[in-house]
Formats: sequence, structure tokens, C-alpha cells
Amino acid sequence: MREQDIFFIKKTFSLARKTEGFVSPNPLVGAVIVKNNRIISSGFHKKAGLPHAEIEAIKKAKTSLKGATLYVNLEPCFHWGKTPPCVDEIIKSGIKRVVVATQDPNPKVNGRSIKKLRQHNIEVEVGVLKEEAQRLNEIFFKNMKKKLPFVVAKVAQTLDGKIATKKGESKWITTKLSRIYARKLRDKYDAVCVGINTIILDNPSLEGIRKSPYKIIIDPQLKIPLEAKIIKKAKNNLIIFCQKEILKKKQKISHLKKKAKLFILNSYEFNLKNIIKILYREENICSIFVEGGSYTLGKFFDEKLVDKIYFFYAPKIMGGKTLTSIGGEGVGTLKKIIQVKDLKITRLNRDFLISGYIKQ
Amino acid sequence: MREQDIFFIKKTFSLARKTEGFVSPNPLVGAVIVKNNRIISSGFHKKAGLPHAEIEAIKKAKTSLKGATLYVNLEPCFHWGKTPPCVDEIIKSGIKRVVVATQDPNPKVNGRSIKKLRQHNIEVEVGVLKEEAQRLNEIFFKNMKKKLPFVVAKVAQTLDGKIATKKGESKWITTKLSRIYARKLRDKYDAVCVGINTIILDNPSLEGIRKSPYKIIIDPQLKIPLEAKIIKKAKNNLIIFCQKEILKKKQKISHLKKKAKLFILNSYEFNLKNIIKILYREENICSIFVEGGSYTLGKFFDEKLVDKIYFFYAPKIMGGKTLTSIGGEGVGTLKKIIQVKDLKITRLNRDFLISGYIKQ
Repeated sequence: MREQDIFFIKKTFSLARKTEGFVSPNPLVGAVIVKNNRIISSGFHKKAGLPHAEIEAIKKAKTSLKGATLYVNLEPCFHWGKTPPCVDEIIKSGIKRVVVATQDPNPKVNGRSIKKLRQHNIEVEVGVLKEEAQRLNEIFFKNMKKKLPFVVAKVAQTLDGKIATKKGESKWITTKLSRIYARKLRDKYDAVCVGINTIILDNPSLEGIRKSPYKIIIDPQLKIPLEAKIIKKAKNNLIIFCQKEILKKKQKISHLKKKAKLFILNSYEFNLKNIIKILYREENICSIFVEGGSYTLGKFFDEKLVDKIYFFYAPKIMGGKTLTSIGGEGVGTLKKIIQVKDLKITRLNRDFLISGYIKQ
Repeated sequence: MREQDIFFIKKTFSLARKTEGFVSPNPLVGAVIVKNNRIISSGFHKKAGLPHAEIEAIKKAKTSLKGATLYVNLEPCFHWGKTPPCVDEIIKSGIKRVVVATQDPNPKVNGRSIKKLRQHNIEVEVGVLKEEAQRLNEIFFKNMKKKLPFVVAKVAQTLDGKIATKKGESKWITTKLSRIYARKLRDKYDAVCVGINTIILDNPSLEGIRKSPYKIIIDPQLKIPLEAKIIKKAKNNLIIFCQKEILKKKQKISHLKKKAKLFILNSYEFNLKNIIKILYREENICSIFVEGGSYTLGKFFDEKLVDKIYFFYAPKIMGGKTLTSIGGEGVGTLKKIIQVKDLKITRLNRDFLISGYIKQ
């Protein structure tokens, strides 16, 4: 692997990251074009429907691309989507070498563009910083491989794993800095999800900082209060999951339907796996940030649906037998314990944040 | 503060630390004697009853001490204990300057040696790295100021604060490296303390690596099984606290008395504050390392007796409503939450360790 390739692939990563949280259902892509060791053009994907990064870079170039090298963090597309296939534009451009960090897992691409480029005598290098590239697009890779949204669990807890006192107080355990950090995380994902108890107890608005993510409420008995902030401020992006037995609550349903999309499921199909499948297939929701409460997060872990965690800790101890961050059924034996890998520790003033990935 | 003073005071700290856990009830003390910018002698306190650090350094010196500077992390003693007062030996030695990191909080000293040295025209500098010096002797400072042992809470838990599965499995949550680290910590303290449930469930031996600390069992109903490891391997350093009502268990008591010291308290005086007072006053136990279980640790926090924490975390999630690291009553409101300051994060292979001090 040439050092120069690594350098320019890293550039594509930082370009790609600029629109994190804003390109769904597409992957994050950045591209740079290099000639005589200098970047002569670059681009990144801004939004689904807008040009791909490679096309942006090709179009923006002010000099001839003949003999140039294109760097891109994901294999260029092979297929017609909302825009024409990038691979053909690259072939036409005169670029003679393409460095790709990772193959596109999309079954419509999946190495076919790489093959086509090579057939047109373009030198292609694949796999430069491959793992980082797959992490950068962890949402897209999960979507393509599992046909399910990427699920992130977030908690804010004491050092002994508690999230509320026995009297139910929970505001606030972590500092403002941690809470702002958590709000910024909402910007990275398509949807925020909570259980109905969190709505009733905390009455959160679940907004991001730069965007208003989808809000998903798991509310089997449709207990949601009509005066909840999340209902009052609904912006056409509120989704509630409930069970058929609530059909008798006709008035509430008709009121809620003005504010939210209701999915009314049979009790036998009311599980989180099914719910996230519906969100992916019917609502095109590619990533879900689950914020609580204890029961809902526990259920997500019980059903083995979580991909990534963000656990915020305050330097505090609560003691007692009260709500812990992860409830649900839990594991019966240590053999079945959920393992977290690639742990990262970030200090946030007095608090700290543990992030990592669930071992599947 | 001269840089040179800081440098040599740091030397006294590392000398003092050599016998951490082995000088109780005395403080950790190191001394260096410097002449013409070079260390000409040094010493440290090895064990209660053996010479103090200053005396060691003075006796070991092979050249005249005339005009030398003595560095010591704690004010030299003023009083006759098992050895004569250091202050007089220093005056006799010809040393002309003494740098002391912190005053001795012992009411028998408490600045009197500093005063006496000055009266003998010895230049005395006090307070070089004072806070570090007090931390180094945190046990001794607590003892002197509160007439109570220094109490340390240790737990090994999952990221969600759990210590056992709902089926009661707890071996092991953390890795071997963490467990060895925790055993080494036992060496630093006079006694290890657990509740009776930990003995029944885990049957631990509670040994250190370089020493066999006192073992304190909180066992109000005297439920301890006679075949427990801790009984079988008792080395004259096992102490059990129980309540008067167990006096009817005559046979068990007479058997246990061969192995352990029993403190049989009235139920109204059976609280941890009282227990640690007894340990300090009657057994000269200056520091206690509390290792569990959930209930016992919770009670220590409920009674506000904890000074320091060592929380080991494994990168694992258990979920469910099971035993958490800190049980007991817990706090009712967030206002009363226990705050931890001076948090330190140490990575231990895949695990990590949080240590810190309880804000009083």
C-alpha cells in the first residue's frame, strides 16, 4: 500500500463525513482526483438524489483528467439510480487509475464496477484502509448485508449503572456537555426511538441539533398523552407502534393520525425485530438511535438487535434497587453475556463516554 | 517553589511508596539528603517499630551532613513512639535546611517539629507538592483527622452495572488481568471486608499477593459455613461481626472462636459506622478494602463511609433486573447522589478501571 494512496483515501473519508446523517439511504462518499501528486478536484455526496461524489469531482475539475488518479472511499456505482452510473463517467473522463477503499456491498454493484473499469484498461486498487472505510459506512453496510437498520443504544447512567432514583428522578444525571454531545449524535441517525415510559416520565422532544430525526415510539397500549411534547411538536416524522387491541380507542387514534403514522400490529407480531424490519422496508429508515428507557433498551439487547453503543457515565453513585440502564429479560448465564468490542473511552469534562460495537 | 525541591520531594514519594501496605498504622515516609546538588543518602520507613526514614538516611550517610538539605514527604516526628523523636536527630546532625512536603496531621506533631527546627536555626520549607503528599498518605490523614479507617469500595461489573446474572452466576465478569490487579490492591490495605452473602455465594479466600490482609465478615446472623475457605485457611486474622441473638448458636460460636475473632454486638449498635470504629480502636485497622456484595457496599455508601472507589468494568452487557454493583437503600433524590471526584481511567486490556474519591 503506497503512503500516498493512504493519504488521499483519508482525504476522501473526511470529505465523506461532512454530510454524516444527511445522505440516507445512501452511503457517505468522498472523492479526490490527483494528478502529478496534487489534488486537482474533489467532491462529496451531499444528499440522496444529488450527484455522487465522483461525478462532482469530475465535473468540478478545471484541467484535463487524462492520466489522473481518482480516489474514492467506496466502489463507484454500476447502476442507474436517481443518477446515472458513475463507472461510465469515470471511463469517459480519461482517468487512468482508481483507488477504492472498499467494494460496494450493494448487490447491484458488489465488484462489478471494479471489473468494468479494469476491462477498460483503468488500473484499479481496492482495499486501501478497507476497515476504516467500512466503519465510515457502517450503517450502509448493515443495511445492504442484513436488510435491517443499524441500531445504536444510548444510555446516560451513574457509575453503578442506574438511570433514575427510586423516587423516579432522572434529570439530570450527566452534565450539559454530555447531553449536547448526545443531541449531536441524533444528527447522525435517521430516527430516534424510545419506549412509551420514557415519553410519560421524561416528556422529551428528541430533536437533533442540525436536523429533526424521525421519532419512533414503542407504545403497545397506546398510552401516549396527547399533550406530550413529541405530539405537539410533531413534524410529519413521528411513528408510533401499537397493538391491535387498542383499536377501540377510536377517538385517540383519529386524533393521533393527524400527528403521527400509526403501525397497528397483531400482538404475535409485536416484537422489535419485526418493528425495525417494517421501519427499514416501509419507511426507508436506515439507522435508529435508541435512547431508552431501561425496558426498551433491554428488549433491543434481548432480541440481539443492537450494533453499537454509546454509554455516558456521570461520576456519581446512586445505590439501591432502582432502574438500571439496560433492563429487559437480561442474560441467564455468563456464557450468553453480550460482548462489546473496539471500546473507545472519551472524557467529556467530568463525565466519560464509552462507545463500542456489539460482537455478533 | 524551586524545581530542585520538587525533584527531590518526588524522590521521597517513590521511596515512601516502596512499603505501601506494610507500615500500618504508620504513614509512608521517604527521605533523601542532598549536598551540593547530589543525593548523599536516603532512607524509607520499612515497618512500624523500625527506624523512621529520616533516621535511616542520617545513619546511612557516609559523609558529613554539615550544610546538607533533608527532603522528607511528611513532617518529622516530635514525639517518642517506638523510636525516639526524629526532630532531635536532625538538629544534632548538622543538616541546615529541611524541605517537608506536608505537615504531620498527628496531633502529637502537627507543626511542632517544624517550629522546633526553625528555633534551632534550620531553614524549613513546608508544602512542596503538598496535595500529592497528602494523597500518598491518604490512609494516615483520614486516621488522624477522623479517628476512623480509610474505606475503599471495589466492584467488578458489566457496563450496565451488574455483578451477577439472574441465575446467580458471577465468575468471572472481568478478565484475569483485572482480577490480579484487584488482588494487588488488597496488599495496600490492612483489611478486606465482605458481607456474608459473598462468602456463601463465592466462597472467596480474599488473599493479597504479597500479604494476607485481615478479613472482616459482616454476618449478623452468623450464617457463615464452617467449611468456608476463609474459615479453613484462617491465619489469626479473621474477624466476624454478628448480633447478640446468635448467642444461642453455642457450638458454632465455640468452633468459630478457634478460627476467628467474634464481635457480638447488640442489634441497635450493629451498623457499619460502629463496626469500622471498633476495627480502628480495638484492632488498629487503619484501612478497609470492601469487596462486596451489592448489599454490603450499598450500606457502606448509605452510611457515607466510603473514601475511595475502584470500579472495574468488563466490556459486557448483562441486561435484566439482577444484582447491581451498589445496592443498599440508595439515594432517593438526585440532590443526595454520591459524587466522585478526581476520576482516573485506566485501561486493563479489554477491561477498564475507574478510580476516584468520594466528595464528602
